[in-house]
Amino acid sequence: MTQKSPASERNTGDRGGRAIGGPGSQPATRFTDPGYMDGLANQAIRGGRHWIPVPPRFGFAIAAGWRFGGRVTPPASPERLARQIRFIVEVDKLKEIFRQTVLINSRRAENDAEHSWHLCLLVITLAEHANWPQLDVLRVLKMLILHDLVEIDAGDTFAYDTKAMVYQHEREAVAADRIFGLLPPDQQGEFRALWDEFEARQTPEGKFAAAVDRFQPMLLNCRTEGAAWRRHGITRDRVIARNSYIAEGSTALWEYAARMIEETVAAGHLAVQSGS
Amino acid sequence: MTQKSPASERNTGDRGGRAIGGPGSQPATRFTDPGYMDGLANQAIRGGRHWIPVPPRFGFAIAAGWRFGGRVTPPASPERLARQIRFIVEVDKLKEIFRQTVLINSRRAENDAEHSWHLCLLVITLAEHANWPQLDVLRVLKMLILHDLVEIDAGDTFAYDTKAMVYQHEREAVAADRIFGLLPPDQQGEFRALWDEFEARQTPEGKFAAAVDRFQPMLLNCRTEGAAWRRHGITRDRVIARNSYIAEGSTALWEYAARMIEETVAAGHLAVQSGS
Repeated sequence: MTQKSPASERNTGDRGGRAIGGPGSQPATRFTDPGYMDGLANQAIRGGRHWIPVPPRFGFAIAAGWRFGGRVTPPASPERLARQIRFIVEVDKLKEIFRQTVLINSRRAENDAEHSWHLCLLVITLAEHANWPQLDVLRVLKMLILHDLVEIDAGDTFAYDTKAMVYQHEREAVAADRIFGLLPPDQQGEFRALWDEFEARQTPEGKFAAAVDRFQPMLLNCRTEGAAWRRHGITRDRVIARNSYIAEGSTALWEYAARMIEETVAAGHLAVQSGS
Repeated sequence: MTQKSPASERNTGDRGGRAIGGPGSQPATRFTDPGYMDGLANQAIRGGRHWIPVPPRFGFAIAAGWRFGGRVTPPASPERLARQIRFIVEVDKLKEIFRQTVLINSRRAENDAEHSWHLCLLVITLAEHANWPQLDVLRVLKMLILHDLVEIDAGDTFAYDTKAMVYQHEREAVAADRIFGLLPPDQQGEFRALWDEFEARQTPEGKFAAAVDRFQPMLLNCRTEGAAWRRHGITRDRVIARNSYIAEGSTALWEYAARMIEETVAAGHLAVQSGS
């Protein structure tokens, strides 16, 4: 097993002398890797920059088309990849959008990229607690990977800042147009639809994604003696009103959250009434 | 459409007066939500703390079992959820593990949680460029969400730090035992297998995940005038040797990366030889 091999061999990028290659060289595994022909066929039907009919001499690509499930992916032109990379570079800014929630150990503010990763981890750990056993977990993950990108332009809105919430969706929709608009049109459409589904909270996946997005900041607040709540004078009734829709995605998670709120109140870290 | 409704209504957690509930209350959608019976059936077959046979009066749960694809999920006892939450709280520490790569805008060090989120975003944007058109994207995402958790105990190892790489895998395997060991046994097994698959780089999903994990730091390095490479005196040949296995997961991404390396050399941000 490779994972049992010496670390020195495992980390050089040179698996037994096979994998070193200069720029533009083919991977040295081309004759041993059963997936290599797929890659080759894929290149053939891409046909460079333009979407061209598959020439007869690429009969093997047509045969491979059967393995693609009958679907031929759009041509991956250099321009297409360049647009995708531009999007990937732009959204690096998500790591600079800071939230009100603080981290459990260092107590510094969490940012949106960390938050988004943590939500993904919650989903793959807690999906069994969703109200729907047959949840499309991949779609939930896609929604959560993308759900805060609009804050690059629109900024983070604190969950209890009712003033900032006025026109929040309008501001975020403009941001979605710009940021998803960096992508090729088909992906812009796909990602925008995922964000709309997340915002609408109507489908099982949208409801569970929204539940996790509310549960994680609560968990961090409860594990940091209610740091963000106390700083902003948030009371128990507002926490319940703001987060009870967790139950629409997962009754089990909401039951856990409700107990957690009461424990935090009992510990004196969340006020029952303003000024208490 | 909810996403077009006024922001004030959209953000109160009170959808038309239906969703407010005190702790322990059921979601107010229980008679209108087609998924609610699934959740109820799921609760019924869970049967509280212990795994019990389904009593006859829960015949609807057995009928619902058909919708579970014949598979009945393990009972979600409070102890099970508590273990999962302990894991989720523990891995908050990933946000405190800093890497050598710096962010494109602020130029501060990136941390593992941000990096992991960015990899997920790369996967959902670039999966079409994998060498296998029928990639299991969900498994790739799970691998990448989990791949750096071991660094909570083992620390980040810079990709070019050959000294730290000695025994790196052994240190990380011990960390995997502890961190995944926080979970219920079935999930510990699943997550450990995903991490092993990522480390082994033998399956299409493992190869593509590893490719993205090498591509993203290169992209950030090239967009920050080779910051981490220059600080550590890394040269072009080492960048190529360390990263060329990207081609095993995606020839298209490696071709892009190889061009990017040459452009960074041409711009004077990556040395061809030590001291040049």
